[in-house]
Amino acid sequence: MIHRLALIGFGMVGQGLCRILQDKKSYLKEKYNFQWELVGISDINKGSVFNEKGLDAEKLLSLVKEKGNIEEYPDGEKGWDSLKTIKDSNADIIVEVSYTDIHTGEPAITHCRTAFLHKKHVVTSNKGPAALAYKELSKIAEENNVMFMIEGTVMSGTPVINLALNELAGNNILSAKGILNGTTNYILTSMELGKSYEDALKEAQRLGYAEVDPTADVEGYDALAKVLILANVVLGVDLKKEDVYRKGITHISREDIELAKKEKKKWKLLGSITKKENKIEAFVMPEKISLEHPLAEINGTTNAITFTTDLLGDVTIVGPGAGKIQTGYSILTDLLDIHKYKQQFLR
Amino acid sequence: MIHRLALIGFGMVGQGLCRILQDKKSYLKEKYNFQWELVGISDINKGSVFNEKGLDAEKLLSLVKEKGNIEEYPDGEKGWDSLKTIKDSNADIIVEVSYTDIHTGEPAITHCRTAFLHKKHVVTSNKGPAALAYKELSKIAEENNVMFMIEGTVMSGTPVINLALNELAGNNILSAKGILNGTTNYILTSMELGKSYEDALKEAQRLGYAEVDPTADVEGYDALAKVLILANVVLGVDLKKEDVYRKGITHISREDIELAKKEKKKWKLLGSITKKENKIEAFVMPEKISLEHPLAEINGTTNAITFTTDLLGDVTIVGPGAGKIQTGYSILTDLLDIHKYKQQFLR
Repeated sequence: MIHRLALIGFGMVGQGLCRILQDKKSYLKEKYNFQWELVGISDINKGSVFNEKGLDAEKLLSLVKEKGNIEEYPDGEKGWDSLKTIKDSNADIIVEVSYTDIHTGEPAITHCRTAFLHKKHVVTSNKGPAALAYKELSKIAEENNVMFMIEGTVMSGTPVINLALNELAGNNILSAKGILNGTTNYILTSMELGKSYEDALKEAQRLGYAEVDPTADVEGYDALAKVLILANVVLGVDLKKEDVYRKGITHISREDIELAKKEKKKWKLLGSITKKENKIEAFVMPEKISLEHPLAEINGTTNAITFTTDLLGDVTIVGPGAGKIQTGYSILTDLLDIHKYKQQFLR
Repeated sequence: MIHRLALIGFGMVGQGLCRILQDKKSYLKEKYNFQWELVGISDINKGSVFNEKGLDAEKLLSLVKEKGNIEEYPDGEKGWDSLKTIKDSNADIIVEVSYTDIHTGEPAITHCRTAFLHKKHVVTSNKGPAALAYKELSKIAEENNVMFMIEGTVMSGTPVINLALNELAGNNILSAKGILNGTTNYILTSMELGKSYEDALKEAQRLGYAEVDPTADVEGYDALAKVLILANVVLGVDLKKEDVYRKGITHISREDIELAKKEKKKWKLLGSITKKENKIEAFVMPEKISLEHPLAEINGTTNAITFTTDLLGDVTIVGPGAGKIQTGYSILTDLLDIHKYKQQFLR
């Protein structure tokens, strides 16, 4: 079965996905009968191209690497904006991998809504729509018989959302707690190894883990978005941004780190959401945890989440929290689920 | 949709499953449209009962608790052996939860084969069939359009098998390594807290973690079976019992434990399987790992497996490795997957 894809955004995640799809083309066809065609890309900075007969992903990857944009791509229509690409392209799956605006969720929320109303599936690693408008969007998707897939929004390609929704089904999930942000965990680990906050941040920026403006990560907004997603999607509670206590890591000094070491402890930025009778407790904040704590050895960009459940007790998943290929993979795993779903309809 | 179940075996797992199914009856119906009826139980020690109109699970649980058997169950046919129950009952799903014989896999292999040939699905936590005859059995299941579900064979209800097969799909899984046996991990943890091997084993037996004859656990046969299952099912390689190096924990003394402590290390019984070009390396043996090792804080009956993959790198899942309700849940998660599969056919 062939799936026609359009990418909204062609940054790290979009490029990581294209790399995987190219490298695994024959494997995916042989093992899963999964075939794909990329028909459109629309990126606000790198340019747009559409060709209903398919684009050459390898050529697009070379272009963006060499020129920083895709404007010289030889054939196809140029200049389609994201909404035109969603509405007028012949893609049946929209891959929304544009930049997250955690305060408004836009324009990604509009992208998702538009796609669903045009009966197109959406796969996204953008945290805005799932954190701020999950209920509304999943309702519209359901009404239009299409899927809203968000594995990449939490812990990159580590299968957190699908683990909770599919493999823990039948459990009542009472809480989710963990290290949800790769950048801050990388900075805290570097500080333990002797770096100052400023040097650790600079290194994270150099390695592509932190943005030029690191506010979303270091002030805890990114982890906050993930707490909202876990709350709304996994725990099934209706939580708003304002309901979550949030504190970042910018106040943590080298002295704090050294003091913790002496106490046989470590600072970790934790995100947590717990159902307590009729109350919900949710926060993002740094905590000093003991070296025996299950999260103490989760270092660098590795992240981890513990789900507390009624039947199994605690189940923890540990894996990459960031990375081009790792987040690219989050899109592939969702594409494979849509593939399974569409195959059922065709039986 | 109503599923008719027959239980082959009514020990801890079968009883745990019945407890969950009773407690979650209305939840499962409301949330998943999953309904069930227990039509037969056949246990070599506790007795057998069959009633095509359904048995009272609550009554069976009381009986086995009070009398140690189900022979006084008031209505239904008595004395059906396991094969008759599989063949002649009106169950559409056979729940094989009899005792594992890791050397022959029998009679569970015959139970599974018979069920498939009679077009009945099998859910099992018995390690024998999956470790010793996975290829043959899954082929017969496929030919007969039924499912062979084995989540409970590794790490009780912690979703290891389904995580690897479903949620890591698209990855090449290069190795699986971890703490695969709850009993030995419990004993080693107790010894770290000061107990002798003998006292730790006695305590494990008292708590129901170890059998009266603890050989299968302490000599590493149980972990060996799990290595075979991971090899055959998850890594897709054809591995035989004889191909796996196996060493248990019986030679580890209190002195060894104390010496490791001084070296800032811990003894753990590890199981491991790795694809290396055209070679497979597989073993079960105790290793001294450093306190910073990701598995160092996996204590007691908690187990953990790390999958090394081409796209995501390492993904680790940590959860219960034993327990009545936890292993009972492994059956439920597989039943829910069969439920989804059957619903598709009816569309």
